[in-house]
Amino acid sequence: MKTRPPSGTRDFLPDDIRRREHVIGVVRTVYERYGFEPIETPAFENIETLLGKYGEEGNKLIFKILKRGEHERTGEADLALRYDLTVPLARVVAQYQNQLPKFFKRYQIQPVWRADRPARGRFREFFQCDIDAIGSTSTLVDVELLSSASEVLGRLGFHDFVLRVNHRRALTALLECAGVPMEQHTDALIALDKLDKIGLAGVEQELSARGVEIEATKACLDFFSDARRDEPSQDVPLQRMREFVKSHAAGASAVDELREIVQLAEATPAQGRIRIDPSLARGLSYYTGAIMEIAVPDLAGSLGGGGRYDNLIGMFLGHDVPATGLTLGLERIIVVMTERGMFPPEVGRGGVDVMVTLWNVESRADAVALARELRQGELRVDVYPDADRLGKQFKYAASRRMPFVAIVGDDERARGEVAVKDLRSGEQTAVPRAEAARFIASRLANNG
Amino acid sequence: MKTRPPSGTRDFLPDDIRRREHVIGVVRTVYERYGFEPIETPAFENIETLLGKYGEEGNKLIFKILKRGEHERTGEADLALRYDLTVPLARVVAQYQNQLPKFFKRYQIQPVWRADRPARGRFREFFQCDIDAIGSTSTLVDVELLSSASEVLGRLGFHDFVLRVNHRRALTALLECAGVPMEQHTDALIALDKLDKIGLAGVEQELSARGVEIEATKACLDFFSDARRDEPSQDVPLQRMREFVKSHAAGASAVDELREIVQLAEATPAQGRIRIDPSLARGLSYYTGAIMEIAVPDLAGSLGGGGRYDNLIGMFLGHDVPATGLTLGLERIIVVMTERGMFPPEVGRGGVDVMVTLWNVESRADAVALARELRQGELRVDVYPDADRLGKQFKYAASRRMPFVAIVGDDERARGEVAVKDLRSGEQTAVPRAEAARFIASRLANNG
Repeated sequence: MKTRPPSGTRDFLPDDIRRREHVIGVVRTVYERYGFEPIETPAFENIETLLGKYGEEGNKLIFKILKRGEHERTGEADLALRYDLTVPLARVVAQYQNQLPKFFKRYQIQPVWRADRPARGRFREFFQCDIDAIGSTSTLVDVELLSSASEVLGRLGFHDFVLRVNHRRALTALLECAGVPMEQHTDALIALDKLDKIGLAGVEQELSARGVEIEATKACLDFFSDARRDEPSQDVPLQRMREFVKSHAAGASAVDELREIVQLAEATPAQGRIRIDPSLARGLSYYTGAIMEIAVPDLAGSLGGGGRYDNLIGMFLGHDVPATGLTLGLERIIVVMTERGMFPPEVGRGGVDVMVTLWNVESRADAVALARELRQGELRVDVYPDADRLGKQFKYAASRRMPFVAIVGDDERARGEVAVKDLRSGEQTAVPRAEAARFIASRLANNG
Repeated sequence: MKTRPPSGTRDFLPDDIRRREHVIGVVRTVYERYGFEPIETPAFENIETLLGKYGEEGNKLIFKILKRGEHERTGEADLALRYDLTVPLARVVAQYQNQLPKFFKRYQIQPVWRADRPARGRFREFFQCDIDAIGSTSTLVDVELLSSASEVLGRLGFHDFVLRVNHRRALTALLECAGVPMEQHTDALIALDKLDKIGLAGVEQELSARGVEIEATKACLDFFSDARRDEPSQDVPLQRMREFVKSHAAGASAVDELREIVQLAEATPAQGRIRIDPSLARGLSYYTGAIMEIAVPDLAGSLGGGGRYDNLIGMFLGHDVPATGLTLGLERIIVVMTERGMFPPEVGRGGVDVMVTLWNVESRADAVALARELRQGELRVDVYPDADRLGKQFKYAASRRMPFVAIVGDDERARGEVAVKDLRSGEQTAVPRAEAARFIASRLANNG
């Protein structure tokens, strides 16, 4: 029998879970501080809910579930695994429109599944940590997204991230002003989205290959070759964009929105983090306004991203509702934190504070009673199950990185004491039984 | 476009999630206090990992995932959704045998999926909260399971649950001593398992229908008709079992194990909870030792259950490893707690402590700055995104059950103050801006 998890998926052992829970705990706390409220949706959706929402490539990556019972033999699928958290949110907003507040701010931390070819850092099951704000067109809401992502990353110990920000309508205006006809915008955006990976020359080649005229290509590259800057003040890129879009009304108002976002963000934890990046396009076609992506120097991809999508919910609701959202990629955050050694020491501790040893078979009831007392002191307590010799029990506890063992031998029992042994120092202390929990807890608080 | 979740599944809105998280939080805390460590496994397994593990009925209820790409048209499945948490655990124990401790105590809180016909309280996606202890045959470990389940339920506010306990080998011995031949045991167990639902007469009928001879049926019923008692002392049922199995060696040792469990549990939070129930069989065929089920008076089914299964892991590992486990059903716990009104008041509070109102468009930066200050005081803070008239903003906050709103008008700004309005009492207080977070936090602590 094969015992490996399916291709592209992972089992998480206790140390993995503690790292994940540490990050999720910070994410959840910050999201709640920002007034986002939790929802969860089923792992699978009716298949027609998902098909057609993620483009042709996305459709192919959706895991489909066979019909059941007599219909199984048809080989048809009626359900499909969640592919992201945004489409289920759009469905939820439509389904519960009368119960949800006018401004619905939700967070959702759940796995999604994509039948991508597995690769280093690319999984078929991975977690997204999404926040979305539904119902308002205010840039204040976009800023709250940027601010909460900044606070999450700051609390996790990231001090070198930047928030790349652009605007879909500004991008459209830039392309129009460069002379790229509307029907070539998607192609041009796909090419420009690769600026990071293939450089200016690569983008030029790709624009030509996709049939963009030489004049327009040249105008694009003139603008974009000097567009990305890494300095705190965003006046220069905003000014360049403003000048390039000139009298293009939609473009000018999009640049104004970007300027508002930059200014408002200065009063938040996103202060100094924003980098206007006119070449940022982001893949998904449903974005309509400000778009954003979180970058750290030592990661090729992004730690997260998002943007405003004012039409997607309308596909379910029947009328458009403004919406903007951001996702943090749990796996990538953990990869970088692990490589940089960013987890606090307590996350690396094992799952047990103290193990009650078993003196002999007759003292089993006393061992579980002691465990109960220690647990009442809020300790994480294991009980060794067999009356093996004490050295073997200590060795087992040490192999599980338990800092303390508690021993009640005949002498200790006679004196109403517990012998507490610190397995890291080897030091053994006899303490009155009623004091044992407090003794161990204070030692743990002092030296981890 | 349909907007309901798929049949048998549910969307969880914020109030639902807060109830679920309250229960999961208690479960996790107690499990950790007992030295269980968290693992998680993928939502789907290779299909051959699951098929054949849950009996013929189980096989039919497994959600199967279509092969992808060019293989999709074959209509074949290569993956299947997790059906329980025990089989994935058995796979994990085999896969990571060299990394896991000799006594591996793990907890796992994840959804499982079963294509059951949806009904009231029966879902196709539901959560299990499992603990299992691998590697020891000691009854001390079974007692730790019963104890931790008792502590979970006690902390959640259950004071009327009982732990029905039996032993598979004792049950086998009882049937043998009653004269039911081995090949009829499974049939007889299925019939006896229905004692709760169909009563003694029903069981008698079913035993006959399944070909159990009249003498054996009579002996069974003589014993089982008086077997269930609801009194704290377990001496009588243990004694009756011991007498009925007489010289049946395996049966006698099984009854001894039950007696040990009862005695040891007296030193734990399971004290007084155990009811030896010789008719308890539990469905799954992989149990081999002590079995247990958690009952409350106002629920027909159980809140959870489990037992010892010493052979299942061997199917993956190649050699048998002793194991015992228990699952708590999150959904059923929540159903009973909701019907009884057992959730603490703070779980019923909304997700926001205070909303910062927006005085006018010009003060947006000041509003996000105030939100930042309040968040630094650990409050959950929303900011109203538009400069609507104040009455409308208050109404919105009240509709979301936010207890407080913070207002900075021109006067307050001039005086360095914030007006804090308690939306429940209507009382409005001007406080120095630097004091606002502490003021609101202390009001929340005092009256929820």
